[in-house]
Amino acid sequence: MRIMAYPGLAMGTQTDRQTEQLVSYIAARALETVVEHRHGSDPVVKLASPDELQSEFDQVSSLALRPHDSVDNATLQQAVDLIIDRSVHTAHPRFFNQNFAGADPIAVAGDWLGSALNTTLATFEMAPVFTLMENAVVGRLAELLGYRPTTVETDANDPLRSAAGIMCPGGSTANMMALQLARHRKRPDSIRVGTGGERLTIFASASSHYSTGKAAAVLGLGTDSVIKVADGPDGTMDVAALSVAVQDSKDRGEVPFAAVATAGTTVTGAFDDLRAMATVTAEHDLWLHVDACFGGAALFSPRTRHLLDGVELTDSFVWNPHKVMGLTQQCTLLAVAEPERLDACFSSKADYLFQPDKLNAELDSGDRTFLCARRVDALKLWLTWKARGETGFTARVDHAMDLADHVRTRIAESDGQFVKMAPGSYVNVVFQWLPKELRSGPDWNPSQLSDDEREALHAVAPRIKARMQTEGTAMVGYQPTDGLNTFRLLFMNPAVTIDDVDETLRLIDDYGQQEWAAAAAKL
Amino acid sequence: MRIMAYPGLAMGTQTDRQTEQLVSYIAARALETVVEHRHGSDPVVKLASPDELQSEFDQVSSLALRPHDSVDNATLQQAVDLIIDRSVHTAHPRFFNQNFAGADPIAVAGDWLGSALNTTLATFEMAPVFTLMENAVVGRLAELLGYRPTTVETDANDPLRSAAGIMCPGGSTANMMALQLARHRKRPDSIRVGTGGERLTIFASASSHYSTGKAAAVLGLGTDSVIKVADGPDGTMDVAALSVAVQDSKDRGEVPFAAVATAGTTVTGAFDDLRAMATVTAEHDLWLHVDACFGGAALFSPRTRHLLDGVELTDSFVWNPHKVMGLTQQCTLLAVAEPERLDACFSSKADYLFQPDKLNAELDSGDRTFLCARRVDALKLWLTWKARGETGFTARVDHAMDLADHVRTRIAESDGQFVKMAPGSYVNVVFQWLPKELRSGPDWNPSQLSDDEREALHAVAPRIKARMQTEGTAMVGYQPTDGLNTFRLLFMNPAVTIDDVDETLRLIDDYGQQEWAAAAAKL
Repeated sequence: MRIMAYPGLAMGTQTDRQTEQLVSYIAARALETVVEHRHGSDPVVKLASPDELQSEFDQVSSLALRPHDSVDNATLQQAVDLIIDRSVHTAHPRFFNQNFAGADPIAVAGDWLGSALNTTLATFEMAPVFTLMENAVVGRLAELLGYRPTTVETDANDPLRSAAGIMCPGGSTANMMALQLARHRKRPDSIRVGTGGERLTIFASASSHYSTGKAAAVLGLGTDSVIKVADGPDGTMDVAALSVAVQDSKDRGEVPFAAVATAGTTVTGAFDDLRAMATVTAEHDLWLHVDACFGGAALFSPRTRHLLDGVELTDSFVWNPHKVMGLTQQCTLLAVAEPERLDACFSSKADYLFQPDKLNAELDSGDRTFLCARRVDALKLWLTWKARGETGFTARVDHAMDLADHVRTRIAESDGQFVKMAPGSYVNVVFQWLPKELRSGPDWNPSQLSDDEREALHAVAPRIKARMQTEGTAMVGYQPTDGLNTFRLLFMNPAVTIDDVDETLRLIDDYGQQEWAAAAAKL
Repeated sequence: MRIMAYPGLAMGTQTDRQTEQLVSYIAARALETVVEHRHGSDPVVKLASPDELQSEFDQVSSLALRPHDSVDNATLQQAVDLIIDRSVHTAHPRFFNQNFAGADPIAVAGDWLGSALNTTLATFEMAPVFTLMENAVVGRLAELLGYRPTTVETDANDPLRSAAGIMCPGGSTANMMALQLARHRKRPDSIRVGTGGERLTIFASASSHYSTGKAAAVLGLGTDSVIKVADGPDGTMDVAALSVAVQDSKDRGEVPFAAVATAGTTVTGAFDDLRAMATVTAEHDLWLHVDACFGGAALFSPRTRHLLDGVELTDSFVWNPHKVMGLTQQCTLLAVAEPERLDACFSSKADYLFQPDKLNAELDSGDRTFLCARRVDALKLWLTWKARGETGFTARVDHAMDLADHVRTRIAESDGQFVKMAPGSYVNVVFQWLPKELRSGPDWNPSQLSDDEREALHAVAPRIKARMQTEGTAMVGYQPTDGLNTFRLLFMNPAVTIDDVDETLRLIDDYGQQEWAAAAAKL
């Protein structure tokens, strides 16, 4: 390694030489974290309470920051070790807890290079390569969606000249930007004069993500402006009910302006019927936004692409490759069918930053969002996309689908030990575990429970999870379905094997039976 | 290095062994980028047009993404080399172009570790250490502001138990959250029912950042709801004019609800008088938000702390340590004097994520924002804060102030070669360069120019900048001041020496004289 010359001042307690040592140490530990595969028998997490963490850090260097802290490298290195030791290992093959898992090491490395180069996506001047990469990744997404009339083959220059959308630090932000675009199309003056007294309304399914409601509050429309449309039996929006709800809203004198389709609901992975929704939104002149934060990965496999049938008819689409595709946090693309609307909606033409007399100013992206500087997330996505190829993306999705199908089969064949609690067409599997005493085959349903049994079963899920966390054996999410806690397994990490999945089901049953026995003793 | 076991599938064109090689290569180049000091004679940037970049990448692997791309490691490594070669080197000692520069290598390393551990700040469960670190950094900021009644010395547990605010992916987002908190305090029902027909108004100085206007548009209030208050001669808000403007707004039947104080304006680095503003906002019951994205670093030096006098009287404060303090993009803290308002304003209690029956759920931070998952930016800030200590932060600010003072002296003693165009009390220096033919001493002002001279001088700044970029000698920003382009030097990078600064002034004069001669020939 070259000698680091961090010149100028010895900053605080650190000399240049000490900085070099510390940075090298952290870099080595970060690389090790990425390249060292954890096996099923390694802990997913070493659980500690806030008090225990605080006391462990007190042995090294307190978590609290004190005005006259003076911490040497040996201490800081111990702190780094403790940070790694006490963090959740999201690439572990028994980690099924979130809708992200198994970061692709190439994405991590791309993120590192972006941090090292430390610039912002706002102007071409400051991010020449990353500006073109952002246009390339968003442009390719738009092609896959059918938003763009041309392909890179027929017009190779196009995606590098004009953007088909923009990247954002997270799906909630991108979903909110899409709703702002929708309001702007319906009421262009609202950018200048505000929404005023009109009741603008948004439609989303009962199972849609909470970011729509949060966005409506921030947008000054209020959470009441989000009209929840009932789900059908498959967990997707009942589109006939949407049609009725929009007409009812109009009849109340409100102004419906946007519908949010969910492509991959958070809990069950349901995909709203985009083609059917597009008919309704066209009839009523609503903007049709697709929240595909979770489900966008379905674009890449023939096994799942049909879930997004009709997407070319929609107005905007948000995909988080940091979810199923294994990019690191955060990586979000907003594609817009008419991307010039981004300028019209968000531009403020600040003259200190977006000087028109500057070189290549027409490529500046920063004025096509309400944000200013953005991290160069395009770099890690471009590198990963190039390195894996779309063949690699397909393989990742298909592997996840294989595992999800395996669990669905295991459930169907479990004779009531596990019961499917939601239809599954994607990488989510939502199911109930039942103690031996309550099993009645695959057609079991919660109405068979007495109130006491229901209460006891509801309380068992958090206990099973706590056991997993305490023993570090696995991490699995749960959530109430009709008021009764059910488990959710999510597949996306290529490191997960069928053995890992089977062992996790065994753990749920094992812990579950023990915890149920304790609970049942009190019934 | 250990053998990488990226198990499971060979993803696309990459085998596990190839992935290991590629990741190691990128990691080594990223580390080299951080530790290798660039000297003044190295290029700050190797300028290339979009066409040139595209053609260079076409020699390696096209920027465009193609469905059947299959790119080998040798090619990807060449692409990485090209990315680094064609990026702007923001840690270079002649880079003065933005309000960020000179990333601290420890912050970069902290960012790397965060990427490697790839989790989100939303729940304690998924980010136990980082949740406590976020509380610690925001808590210490709140102490420095005087928001918190207790200190860590007297109540060491406190900052680890409850949050004094939240971190955000950028200043624009945090400023918008502060305005939403302000609206919520004035009209709690607006979260549910929207703003309605009321005309809510916001007050900010003429030189405030454009994010206030952009936020007002997104918030559904409209850009017209932002009432720009005139600056006084020192570039700070005229507080008497604020008082009049608020009363005028009330007299028009509007509902003033927030004032935005700017601590460190983008162009001149002016700090609004917080104490005087607080008197006005208290009288009229307005939320007083401080946009200290740029100026928050002033907290750490006795030479600049007075610029934030009265900050303890304000309601919210946003600081971007990724600016002057050298953290990597993005690193933003929002501190709130009454932080429990974050819950009341933003919570939606999504039951799949924020299960109340989960361990330590009371520490979950994700429901105190409209965002969902957030990158663990707290880690890099905590590590840097611990490693440098506040002594180190003070040294960074003082070094920047020394350089800014040096340029201010150089300007004053330049006999009209450079003319100060704005008062300077922070790390910004805004000045006009004049060709020999136009110099008339330090009292020169633009009214002395003929229309032709004015036009020619205005056009010289972009040409000087283009020369710098083309030759890679330095990067300096410019912006129109009263319609005439002026230069802005910004100091914060500890690598910058007085020699770098003097050489940059020499370059401006040298290029300027040449470009002026070319322009003057056409007069």
